Amino acid sequence: MNFNVAVIKGDGIGPEIVDQAVRVLDAAAEKSGHEFTYKQILMGGASIDAYGKPLTEETLETARNSDAVLMGSIGGNTTTSPWYRLPAELRPEAGLLALRKGLGLFANIRPAYLYEELKKACPLRDEIIGDGFDMVIMRELTGGLYFGERSTEVVDGIRVAKDSLTYNENEIRRIAVKAFDIARKRKKHVISVDKANVLDSSRLWRQVVEEVAKDYEDVTYEHMLVDNCAMQLVNDPKQFDVILTENMFGDILSDEASMITGSIGMLSSASLAEGKFGLYEPSHGSAPDIAGKDIANPIATILSAAMMLRYSFDLDAEADMIEMAVKKVLKDGYRTVDIMSDGMVQVGTKAMGDLIIERI
Amino acid sequence: MNFNVAVIKGDGIGPEIVDQAVRVLDAAAEKSGHEFTYKQILMGGASIDAYGKPLTEETLETARNSDAVLMGSIGGNTTTSPWYRLPAELRPEAGLLALRKGLGLFANIRPAYLYEELKKACPLRDEIIGDGFDMVIMRELTGGLYFGERSTEVVDGIRVAKDSLTYNENEIRRIAVKAFDIARKRKKHVISVDKANVLDSSRLWRQVVEEVAKDYEDVTYEHMLVDNCAMQLVNDPKQFDVILTENMFGDILSDEASMITGSIGMLSSASLAEGKFGLYEPSHGSAPDIAGKDIANPIATILSAAMMLRYSFDLDAEADMIEMAVKKVLKDGYRTVDIMSDGMVQVGTKAMGDLIIERI
Ligand SMILES: [Mg+2]
Ligand SMILES: [Mg+2]
Repeated sequence: MNFNVAVIKGDGIGPEIVDQAVRVLDAAAEKSGHEFTYKQILMGGASIDAYGKPLTEETLETARNSDAVLMGSIGGNTTTSPWYRLPAELRPEAGLLALRKGLGLFANIRPAYLYEELKKACPLRDEIIGDGFDMVIMRELTGGLYFGERSTEVVDGIRVAKDSLTYNENEIRRIAVKAFDIARKRKKHVISVDKANVLDSSRLWRQVVEEVAKDYEDVTYEHMLVDNCAMQLVNDPKQFDVILTENMFGDILSDEASMITGSIGMLSSASLAEGKFGLYEPSHGSAPDIAGKDIANPIATILSAAMMLRYSFDLDAEADMIEMAVKKVLKDGYRTVDIMSDGMVQVGTKAMGDLIIERI
Repeated sequence: MNFNVAVIKGDGIGPEIVDQAVRVLDAAAEKSGHEFTYKQILMGGASIDAYGKPLTEETLETARNSDAVLMGSIGGNTTTSPWYRLPAELRPEAGLLALRKGLGLFANIRPAYLYEELKKACPLRDEIIGDGFDMVIMRELTGGLYFGERSTEVVDGIRVAKDSLTYNENEIRRIAVKAFDIARKRKKHVISVDKANVLDSSRLWRQVVEEVAKDYEDVTYEHMLVDNCAMQLVNDPKQFDVILTENMFGDILSDEASMITGSIGMLSSASLAEGKFGLYEPSHGSAPDIAGKDIANPIATILSAAMMLRYSFDLDAEADMIEMAVKKVLKDGYRTVDIMSDGMVQVGTKAMGDLIIERI
């Protein structure tokens, strides 16, 4: 099959890590007989330099007409880059928010995976790690406290600030469906996280998750309170497969989960829309200080490309192929500088791409 | 000086652990020439059994007229105890909520301390622990999402649930003042946690904390986003002294922090009102399965009594005395069964009390 991929190389280390991800995709395509057609589009700093704004209507349209978007990282050094002397709505990050909104991306997925080879970087003890852990956190991205009405007023001479947290059943249902779909591609277990002993929105969340669960008899699920989940991530991360949660809880828990892997530079992410469309990008930033030096770690972007194959194109075998190649390279002792340790072989960005391609 | 302490022994292991805390208090009183007068009051299951409800108006009045409240743990086995066949507002936990409200307790303090001797139970690696960590989490207890208006309605056939998060400047100021006061008794550093890049309530929180900080030139402070804080607790817990935060964030972060100590059975807590009044209780539950067996760990309650001396009575030297005695007992190799490890001497509840008293 042929798939159209819109590619946003982005800023800083973005272009060099995306180049490696595209080479890896092509290697997987060659193996499997599929074909990927790429359309380069600009967003973030690069778009500001070319068009005076971080996202143009044409770029959004091109992204919308593709089957998925693969992205590097965007933004620059906030103290030295001229992009940050622009008003907030013209800065690189505003382009990303507009793109997410324009593409209807409502589900953010961040895997937290422990690589046996990088185990020593994990802040948790070996006894807790056990045989390792492998979870994804699915965070609702367009509702809750981030998008509710808010106000700050002076009432009787006293400043009062208010935020609101709203969810309707449709918003909950569509992400719950995604979570159960993804659990089906994994270990078939969903833990839905809420604060149902306090919040009305959490009680509705729980109800709707239970309704959705009825359609997935092959997937087991349970509910967990958010404070308990924050503890369990540290206490026993092995118990998690898919964590499903609302926007704010997902922000907190996905960051906690990424930290316990000990290797944030290795973590991919996806943001999904209705249907199969999604945007795939590394969890890390654009690291402008090391841009263009061929030392950046391309693995998070390569793994984001693998997620694209799995979740947008249903090419699970090809995604496995890439993920296995990454594991093999680590096992064979190759490291970029950010994950370097004694006795390993240090390689650059392009060489890491080569090594992964060799193993596909 | 003479201090009046209202004592709630509570349910399950409550009575036996409170007994040891009172004995330790008396030992400290004898050393220092102060005097504690105790008034026993009933709350929770014990009050249901005696009066048919978990908190009576007279009990609340007695608590209010004391200088502080020392409490064990309340509640029973939720599946077997008859207390849980009562309507929610008549169950043991409803008594605690009513007591907190009736006493105007708006600031919850939970220390998260790593005992060198119990280091192996900490889920974090030795390199992360370093020389240990010692922080307190101060959580706002009467505002935010827990007490905002909420509703669930059907709008155009669709269920919509809404919660609200409100803070006014007075609510923020009074807890910020507590946090800076307590930092003065400790390492003089406050980290105020919010989500100011998203929430109006967090932006007001940040403003008011900055206003309060002006009165504490000897205390340094910084702001941290809640998602980053969830990461930093795992990544580098040593950096924290006093964490100041709102209700929901405090719920999540204090539980995460307690888990990283690895010894929840050792953790005390306090809930403070305006002025010096406070209620002091262990963080753990009433463990009805081991009640009356003389095996429960009384240390969290004993340390809660020490907090009472420090925060309600300003008896810092006496509080230090108790805390040092606890450390000494651990160093000398004595353990209750919940923290037992190879080569140590296992002791019961009362014996642990004796050992601590000997070291005062
Ligand atoms: Mg975050
Ligand atoms: Mg909690």
